[in-house]
Amino acid sequence: MNSRPRALSGFPEFLPVGRIVEQRVLDLLRHEFELHGFASLETRSVEPLSVLAGKGEIDKEVYAVRRLHADEATADELGLRYDNTVPFARYVTEFSGKLNFPFRRYQIQKVWRGERPQQGRYREFTQADIDIVGAGSLATHHDLEIPLVMLGAFARMSDELGLPPVTMHVSNRKLAEGYYRGLGITETGAVLQRIDKLDKIGPEKVAALLTDELGLAAEVADKCLALAEIRSGGVELADRVRALGVEHELLDVGLAELTEVVQTAQTYRPGRLVADLRIARGLDYYTGTVYETVLEGHPELGSICSGGRYDSLADDGKQTYPGVGISVGVSRLLGPLVADGTASASRSVPSVVLVAVTDEEQRGEALAVAAALRANDIATEVAPRADRFGKQIRYAERRGIPFVWFGTDQVKDIRSGEQVQADPTRWEPPAADRTATVKLG
Amino acid sequence: MNSRPRALSGFPEFLPVGRIVEQRVLDLLRHEFELHGFASLETRSVEPLSVLAGKGEIDKEVYAVRRLHADEATADELGLRYDNTVPFARYVTEFSGKLNFPFRRYQIQKVWRGERPQQGRYREFTQADIDIVGAGSLATHHDLEIPLVMLGAFARMSDELGLPPVTMHVSNRKLAEGYYRGLGITETGAVLQRIDKLDKIGPEKVAALLTDELGLAAEVADKCLALAEIRSGGVELADRVRALGVEHELLDVGLAELTEVVQTAQTYRPGRLVADLRIARGLDYYTGTVYETVLEGHPELGSICSGGRYDSLADDGKQTYPGVGISVGVSRLLGPLVADGTASASRSVPSVVLVAVTDEEQRGEALAVAAALRANDIATEVAPRADRFGKQIRYAERRGIPFVWFGTDQVKDIRSGEQVQADPTRWEPPAADRTATVKLG
Repeated sequence: MNSRPRALSGFPEFLPVGRIVEQRVLDLLRHEFELHGFASLETRSVEPLSVLAGKGEIDKEVYAVRRLHADEATADELGLRYDNTVPFARYVTEFSGKLNFPFRRYQIQKVWRGERPQQGRYREFTQADIDIVGAGSLATHHDLEIPLVMLGAFARMSDELGLPPVTMHVSNRKLAEGYYRGLGITETGAVLQRIDKLDKIGPEKVAALLTDELGLAAEVADKCLALAEIRSGGVELADRVRALGVEHELLDVGLAELTEVVQTAQTYRPGRLVADLRIARGLDYYTGTVYETVLEGHPELGSICSGGRYDSLADDGKQTYPGVGISVGVSRLLGPLVADGTASASRSVPSVVLVAVTDEEQRGEALAVAAALRANDIATEVAPRADRFGKQIRYAERRGIPFVWFGTDQVKDIRSGEQVQADPTRWEPPAADRTATVKLG
Repeated sequence: MNSRPRALSGFPEFLPVGRIVEQRVLDLLRHEFELHGFASLETRSVEPLSVLAGKGEIDKEVYAVRRLHADEATADELGLRYDNTVPFARYVTEFSGKLNFPFRRYQIQKVWRGERPQQGRYREFTQADIDIVGAGSLATHHDLEIPLVMLGAFARMSDELGLPPVTMHVSNRKLAEGYYRGLGITETGAVLQRIDKLDKIGPEKVAALLTDELGLAAEVADKCLALAEIRSGGVELADRVRALGVEHELLDVGLAELTEVVQTAQTYRPGRLVADLRIARGLDYYTGTVYETVLEGHPELGSICSGGRYDSLADDGKQTYPGVGISVGVSRLLGPLVADGTASASRSVPSVVLVAVTDEEQRGEALAVAAALRANDIATEVAPRADRFGKQIRYAERRGIPFVWFGTDQVKDIRSGEQVQADPTRWEPPAADRTATVKLG
């Protein structure tokens, strides 16, 4: 590298402060997931293309991977994962004999999609997923547990880091599919795909797609749109769906599932979860409850946390492994907040203390002070050069390091200028200074 | 996925217990790195092929990445990183105006190499790196700091997790290059490459390579081998090199650097770091001190932690950014230890407590107990089904969860069978049970 390289569009990288913000959020998510008994899992980055293909709208966004000097004949067999769900389903079927079901796991990994890079869309980004899969069956109470765990994590991000509140929007594919069937529609998936465009193109254009592309009668298209308009946080959900006058067995099942999720959620996270029947999700593999999440005041971010129930994604030939899960788009959430300065950290390094070096002959003394501080779990670095003290203090200032240690027994808070005598084997920084202060809003 | 998929050779995945082992090691490394003021950094997974090419022996192992539906014309411009150093050097030159130098960072990420999969060689694996880079210059005391930080991390892995001790083997490319030049050799890099094969093929075959392939006289080849045989933990290093009777200015510089590192290290980590002049490192970018590390009792793992000084890897056209760093091969270390059972964890989930469910009508009561425990930071899951208690206890046993909670006020240690009355808002598990017990040896 002997000229300055350019950024690759769609492959964002954080500066150290942004990374500290991201780490804090990932630590918080991990803590919250583990507190609920989810085991960590990482899957390999590549999957056979046959595993990645045909799972939804994003086939054409897959990145193929091959050895640079491979024969052409062996090329293109592998692709990078585009989410954490499809590889997880593969993992479950591959290792089903060695896992205990229901299996609860979280997975925080990069995923890759060859989308056209644009506002809030990346080609490489981090997703944080939780999922629960059963062997043969999985109780529906997990459809409620999953959003509650995630809403708990968001509540913690609000309380501890100042993130605005979120609202989770929930629907149910059985409800929608049953409703469409009740209307006599057979291509229910095609209808759902058009309904999914409501936010982008509005109801009139969606109606036109339903009538022109799918050949639905105008009044049938209107009925589809009427369902999508229902948004409800409580007991009137069923009444409003029933009022549309459509009947189907699958509609009843989906409506009962959705009502249970929405009503019980009010007990635990009042107001944070609403039924919203326009939610469809682009991925083919969802079969029941589906989730999307919006951050208050940030509609431009789109859904920052999405997922749903998938009853037939994983199948090892002997039985199916139905699952339900949800995924935080960590990069989608933090990328814009860090870029515009909304999210930030008080320093760019973990160090609490910089130990100054008086002259190079005394470096050993400074190393001993640093070792004593580290023995008490205080992140410490030693000045790289025995510059004059003013320059060493600026070294700390530029990085946001709050304390500079001089000699063996003097420590200065460089924010207040206060300098005190202290013993490096016993001194403790204020608890709030042990790690960087991170804010998300 | 409707048949059981097969593993991809070279792309290992841990079961949950193995992942808990890996997490504990990564947490320990992160903690130790941050304690020394290294800031976390992650770089994008892909680099332009021009950045990846020509940095050593591994060019032909690069994985190319392209959008599955990209035009052939735009294909093959990007490749997956094969280490964390080359992307870091690119990052430093790209963001040099926004970084503070010397810049200390750690980076724990996957890397990919299209090697033929074999014992201990993976195609996707995790590396944990620390590096320090300067702008224009970087003091040589960092050549000592880097191995000391890493030896501290290994000492902690020994003390806390039972890992056998390691020995770090250090050499210096200036020393070797100066020595070869002093012998009148011009193709010093080619000699170093052959010397690097000593461990694999032995001194006789290396001597044959030096004479047959490089045309060295037999006595010159013998001199090269004589240097490589020197291994020393202390003061006699310089004497032994001098005794070979070769003189060159660069030899003097390298010998002084190496002597400083080896002798000072004895003060801080006695016996853990030795000069070993057969160490060469396969990568082209090293220019001075080089490190390799062997785990006692596990020569089959090869070097589990390697690195060195690179003075000209990063250059933005205005100045160079010399650096020194080292990388733990986390997968190379843990993969075999987990596979053969040497490394293990006491449970496969984070949960300390399973809250039993008496009947589905009482699930809300169990959820309230779980919430109370979690409020005290106790990882807790709720039984997925109101099975008979024996079955719920087996659910916990299979996962290694130590405690099962019954009703609102009974908790049982299922290892001892002891059951006591307790208040879920006040009960605390023994400190040792809060997280899984992990051992590495």
